[in-house]
Amino acid sequence: MSMTLSLRPIGIIHTPFREPAGTPIQPVYAYGAEGTVEVYDHFAEGLADLEGFERIWLIYVCDRAVDPKMRVVPYRDTRERGLFATRAPARPNPLGLSCVRLLRIEINVLHVGDLDILDGTPLLDIKPYVPAFDSFPEVRGGWLGERNAERIVADERFH
Amino acid sequence: MSMTLSLRPIGIIHTPFREPAGTPIQPVYAYGAEGTVEVYDHFAEGLADLEGFERIWLIYVCDRAVDPKMRVVPYRDTRERGLFATRAPARPNPLGLSCVRLLRIEINVLHVGDLDILDGTPLLDIKPYVPAFDSFPEVRGGWLGERNAERIVADERFH
Repeated sequence: MSMTLSLRPIGIIHTPFREPAGTPIQPVYAYGAEGTVEVYDHFAEGLADLEGFERIWLIYVCDRAVDPKMRVVPYRDTRERGLFATRAPARPNPLGLSCVRLLRIEINVLHVGDLDILDGTPLLDIKPYVPAFDSFPEVRGGWLGERNAERIVADERFH
Repeated sequence: MSMTLSLRPIGIIHTPFREPAGTPIQPVYAYGAEGTVEVYDHFAEGLADLEGFERIWLIYVCDRAVDPKMRVVPYRDTRERGLFATRAPARPNPLGLSCVRLLRIEINVLHVGDLDILDGTPLLDIKPYVPAFDSFPEVRGGWLGERNAERIVADERFH
């Protein structure tokens, strides 16, 4: 299929993390790390009603990731795994997905916590986290259930 | 920001749903609806180790959605809400996010259940569903907690 999809950022994510080394690899390991999501003015009206949600999904571009390989040693393991069985940022379409905590909203700026995202990352979409749609606490978690490595921050391997 | 990101599908999603009317609005309302995710050959190696996961995230293009409006009446409500406080498919970047059930894998074809996706939808990414990263059963769900409309299938409003 030769279709190409062109996307334009709807905002930018400001975080304390300037480089991959030391950046949390997931929101659950981010210990509250706070920052802001700046949504461009003409999209601000779309943020109405978001304040009732405790967590939100951010979908963003992993814009500093290297070209993808189909097998990688992920942060939480010591052996190679298929790329799509990992959350590594270097992917054919480098889309990042993070469930962050929504703290408060000031017009077009969301104050958020539990950030695992590099500073200056382009934002593509915001969706509310809906427990009835998104929470499956009991499902099998594959190799990640084995916890072969306890790493909780990134290094340079995917950037 | 004038950056444009070009994405190319990594596969295509085959489902029983040929048109929006009657398509489930979320996997939790899909009552097991089954189909396949065809991943293009050169990405098949990246599917290794995925079979241990009970559910997977599909990120895809809502390629038949209309142009977005910043306020919409969502399927589960009777009044307008800010677009980013909804999961409506008509968005500035029309990215869909569904947590489907992984049934089995045959080389480059994933057999999946709980599909809420239109037939022929272009696939952008697959990520494993990891309960430790993705499951927050107790968080506040905003207006969706009020259940103002019990609709569980789509209509034509966003297509």
